[in-house]
Amino acid sequence: MEIVVIGAGIVGLAAAWRTAQRGGPDVTVTLVDPEPASGATSVAAGMITPVGELAYGEEALLRLNLASRDRYDAFIAEVEELTGARTGYRDDGLLQVAFDADDLAVLDDLRRFQASLGLPVEALTGRECRKLEPMLAPGVRGGLLAPRDGSVDPRRLAAALLTACEKSGVRPVRSAAKGVVVERDAVAGVRLADGTVLRADRVLLAAGPWSGDLEGLPDGTVPSVRPVKGQVIRLRTRVPFLRRCTRGLVKGSPVYLVPRADDGEIVLGATQEELGFDTRVTAGGLWELLRDARELFPGVTELEFAEVRAGLRPGSPDNAPVMGAAALPGLVLGTGHFRHGVLLAPVSADALSAMLLDGPVPEVARPFSPERFSPERIPEVNR
Amino acid sequence: MEIVVIGAGIVGLAAAWRTAQRGGPDVTVTLVDPEPASGATSVAAGMITPVGELAYGEEALLRLNLASRDRYDAFIAEVEELTGARTGYRDDGLLQVAFDADDLAVLDDLRRFQASLGLPVEALTGRECRKLEPMLAPGVRGGLLAPRDGSVDPRRLAAALLTACEKSGVRPVRSAAKGVVVERDAVAGVRLADGTVLRADRVLLAAGPWSGDLEGLPDGTVPSVRPVKGQVIRLRTRVPFLRRCTRGLVKGSPVYLVPRADDGEIVLGATQEELGFDTRVTAGGLWELLRDARELFPGVTELEFAEVRAGLRPGSPDNAPVMGAAALPGLVLGTGHFRHGVLLAPVSADALSAMLLDGPVPEVARPFSPERFSPERIPEVNR
Repeated sequence: MEIVVIGAGIVGLAAAWRTAQRGGPDVTVTLVDPEPASGATSVAAGMITPVGELAYGEEALLRLNLASRDRYDAFIAEVEELTGARTGYRDDGLLQVAFDADDLAVLDDLRRFQASLGLPVEALTGRECRKLEPMLAPGVRGGLLAPRDGSVDPRRLAAALLTACEKSGVRPVRSAAKGVVVERDAVAGVRLADGTVLRADRVLLAAGPWSGDLEGLPDGTVPSVRPVKGQVIRLRTRVPFLRRCTRGLVKGSPVYLVPRADDGEIVLGATQEELGFDTRVTAGGLWELLRDARELFPGVTELEFAEVRAGLRPGSPDNAPVMGAAALPGLVLGTGHFRHGVLLAPVSADALSAMLLDGPVPEVARPFSPERFSPERIPEVNR
Repeated sequence: MEIVVIGAGIVGLAAAWRTAQRGGPDVTVTLVDPEPASGATSVAAGMITPVGELAYGEEALLRLNLASRDRYDAFIAEVEELTGARTGYRDDGLLQVAFDADDLAVLDDLRRFQASLGLPVEALTGRECRKLEPMLAPGVRGGLLAPRDGSVDPRRLAAALLTACEKSGVRPVRSAAKGVVVERDAVAGVRLADGTVLRADRVLLAAGPWSGDLEGLPDGTVPSVRPVKGQVIRLRTRVPFLRRCTRGLVKGSPVYLVPRADDGEIVLGATQEELGFDTRVTAGGLWELLRDARELFPGVTELEFAEVRAGLRPGSPDNAPVMGAAALPGLVLGTGHFRHGVLLAPVSADALSAMLLDGPVPEVARPFSPERFSPERIPEVNR
């Protein structure tokens, strides 16, 4: 069987690797991307924080997020062992802090909601927060610790997954997919920008916010996936500054800081703007992130500024992933991961490879089928 | 006569060009720099604002600054005609604005001082400021217009001067000067990093904050020149945003915005930090500049962020330039231009080339001789 994966972001990379690994010798996997891991994957901070980032009305997504986090240890161990690479994975918890009393009220609501779902989370006083993170501002009012949340360096993980793909027999094609070839009402291949056609029995469309751009797809095959811009700063420290992932609410404005395990990098994010395919960094985006980070950690001002980038998260109509068979036979969708692409890589790889290989799809992934957006269906997910 | 110029920043470039041009066929000029125009010249905003940046106690420097500004029109015309390059020169004034009442009091003092020196400057109400610059914040309290101040793009000017040097017979040597060769108590040449010696009858030392680093110089030959770090942001706009150079005081903190004539670039500066040879950009430097610029021009938040860099200004003990014969015969100093290297390029080129060629040195440059720092002299400049 010939399988083509379109898009080598974190989800496409993980799915291509798993598919080649599980497909065995009768399956060939081709991964098409002009520049692997160059989109949101290269900008993302890499938080693995299903508990900390819980949102009301997203219980089905929470189950998926938790399932993916639970797979992370084994996923990383496998990738690192296969490739010899290090991915900067750490599972030492997420601290959430509140800057003022209103922010603390929001965190208290979140804590009650987390508790009602049986999630392990610990309420902390301001003093306890500062004991965990001594650089926190004296005024921080209190916080929550999600002890099993963590992070990974998405750039290193993507590089390792690309190596894992190659070691597992995935053929990388550094070209843009231009369209899908349809024969007898089913997918028969992928047309590249230079006109080359890659024949395929199955195609996984994992092109993030560009997933709707392919030529040759019947109308309505791919639910609308929009780009949601995020601006992310990378800082560097020469001295110990931050011990673990910290997310703060500063007068209602969310900000997070993600420290890398070993190289002094601290990632600071992230804005959310709906501006179409615009990846310009703005003075205002930079300023907001620095402002909020300074409120939480005044010492941020002394850190070296290394980089700022904007990426485009793929957002589906309900902001949840779109994973499953499309109405067009042979086409599988793996997009819409929005703010959770890195977190969801392990479970998405398992689910999407099963969908491509007709294997058992994890129960937890079933609610995310594109069918939920069919005109004849009333949306169920996250309602 | 063999002349070697050490340092191809804006001052070294302008001086090397003038010296080759005025020296005639019997003079050869060699310009030594591993990377021309890569220091403060490549970071500077390029303000030509002797009136706007007047400071108490710097009347001698004001005369030099005004003399240089008065030469700018002809200097640019000559460089542009010789090279065919454009330098982004503009002389359409500097607007200074005050954010609050305290800032306005500071500007009022400045206006009285300017008036006492007979400088042409116009006091403006907040409304008049906004008429000149419609994007100014509604709260801006008032300002001053220095109608003859202006700006130039230092990167373009330096590139044009490098071309002018080559067209005038200056020989560029892309190597670092390591030391000075002294024979019979006079300069006899310059030793490069690779050991090569360039013989020289006269040497101009124009190496900015590195001017004290040369080997072979007797102690005390070069007055102490320290690096003063400045962080500068480059923004881009697609729509008209700023009409002229604008400098603001925001709760006592100075900030300036310099628009380029044609490419949408807006330069935003500048911090002043005394941290040694440190060119790291810091989160705090970025944040301060963006904060103050936003207070003056709220629309800055919408502008694209293009670049941030830190440069090192060369500061002498009295923060005024050091131009003149050193105690070591054959050595001429041209350093310490601090915040005014771009402004002072034309007059420095005239003065330094005259010093190298035994021509008539402009009267206005005489107070800046290194002799003022000799132990047996009581400093006169700026006292």
